[in-house]
Amino acid sequence: MKNYKITIQYDGTRYKGWQVQKSTDMTIQGKIQDVLSAMTGQEIEVIGSGRTDAGVHAFGQVANFHIPEHFSQDEVLEYLNHYLPMDIAVLDIEEVEERFHARYHAVSKTYVYRIHTSTIPNVFERKYMYTYTEPLDVSKMREAANRMLGTHDFMAFCSNKKMKKSTVRTVTAIDIQEKENEIRISYTGDGFLQNMIRIMTGTLIEVGNGAKKVEDISQILESKVRENAGYTVPAEGLLLKCVNYE
Amino acid sequence: MKNYKITIQYDGTRYKGWQVQKSTDMTIQGKIQDVLSAMTGQEIEVIGSGRTDAGVHAFGQVANFHIPEHFSQDEVLEYLNHYLPMDIAVLDIEEVEERFHARYHAVSKTYVYRIHTSTIPNVFERKYMYTYTEPLDVSKMREAANRMLGTHDFMAFCSNKKMKKSTVRTVTAIDIQEKENEIRISYTGDGFLQNMIRIMTGTLIEVGNGAKKVEDISQILESKVRENAGYTVPAEGLLLKCVNYE
Repeated sequence: MKNYKITIQYDGTRYKGWQVQKSTDMTIQGKIQDVLSAMTGQEIEVIGSGRTDAGVHAFGQVANFHIPEHFSQDEVLEYLNHYLPMDIAVLDIEEVEERFHARYHAVSKTYVYRIHTSTIPNVFERKYMYTYTEPLDVSKMREAANRMLGTHDFMAFCSNKKMKKSTVRTVTAIDIQEKENEIRISYTGDGFLQNMIRIMTGTLIEVGNGAKKVEDISQILESKVRENAGYTVPAEGLLLKCVNYE
Repeated sequence: MKNYKITIQYDGTRYKGWQVQKSTDMTIQGKIQDVLSAMTGQEIEVIGSGRTDAGVHAFGQVANFHIPEHFSQDEVLEYLNHYLPMDIAVLDIEEVEERFHARYHAVSKTYVYRIHTSTIPNVFERKYMYTYTEPLDVSKMREAANRMLGTHDFMAFCSNKKMKKSTVRTVTAIDIQEKENEIRISYTGDGFLQNMIRIMTGTLIEVGNGAKKVEDISQILESKVRENAGYTVPAEGLLLKCVNYE
């Protein structure tokens, strides 16, 4: 068997997220597995670097799978892009060593959240942004973001209240860029809990609009109570930009 | 009455083009007229700089309309962007002199045609490009484009065989840019016939793939026969970029 690593781009609008739940669901993982299974005539499991929620997009999701030796890289790439729906594309494929695992070996991930700040709609990118038109104090948002950096228990920023595993994560960078009619926040960390980036973004928006103070961030983290953090912004503004490996 | 000039952006995917045909049709002009009529309580006619076909997009279409004095610029802009569907946006509004007419006073227009040249789909911009993956000789396409420049009878590049008015037009610039996985052709001229840019683009593609020669262009123009020109590329790749006034 060969182990292939692929880089995947998708418009998440139509999908119930990355991970297969029922075989009939519209999921990215499911679509890719279906094509590979049809190609090889056997069931193929595609291992993603992690889940993305329903409606979340990816610029560079990474996954791996094992298939019989005789399928070449080019053949697999061509087959996938030919048979996958137009809103899923495989950008790149490479053969990796047998033990490579897209989830276990991921060192960090970068996500981008796009906030459209104008009352004039962005016609061409409307499906990839969340529109929020109240004034936001971006310098306060940057200060608040700085207080989220580092290693913390992010329980207050996790939507899964029954989370049994550790909720400690390390966020290494949060960069907030102001563009014309847009605020773009990128987050890099070793891993993110369920809805964590969407709750962090909602919290930063609440600091930006004055509902919360910069100083509240440390208390929210310490409290470990979801209700103390901000709201969960919609999935459409979120994009998994890249997954980094050593 | 006040005369307002507006700049409009739209994703043409869902629409039957700019111009109202039947009142029940999905058209851009119809959608804008409906909103303005609801706002003013009277029938408002919106005059576009020209038609765009079904499926064609606009980055900067221009139109004008007359409405009662007491509606302010800001009010109209806000009302339009609030009630128009998310795939139509009014970017700008300005009061112009009574006689200004979006069609008669347009001096030139620039259209852009985007050709996606990779077998790897572009997930996020797939609705705004035409995918053509055979090799194209771009330098030959540039030479052919140069032979289309100037004032000619473009009858051979017009899909309307019953065209009664003059088919003489002046094309002042055709610029072909090569990008990663994309060829982008922009056309500027004083006006374009029905499907003219899509037929010019199909003809340039046929020069690029070797089906036609650079030298054929003059003969095609002189023949004035539609069948001598290339095929009509799909609407989805075409965008009205801007309309220029003096």
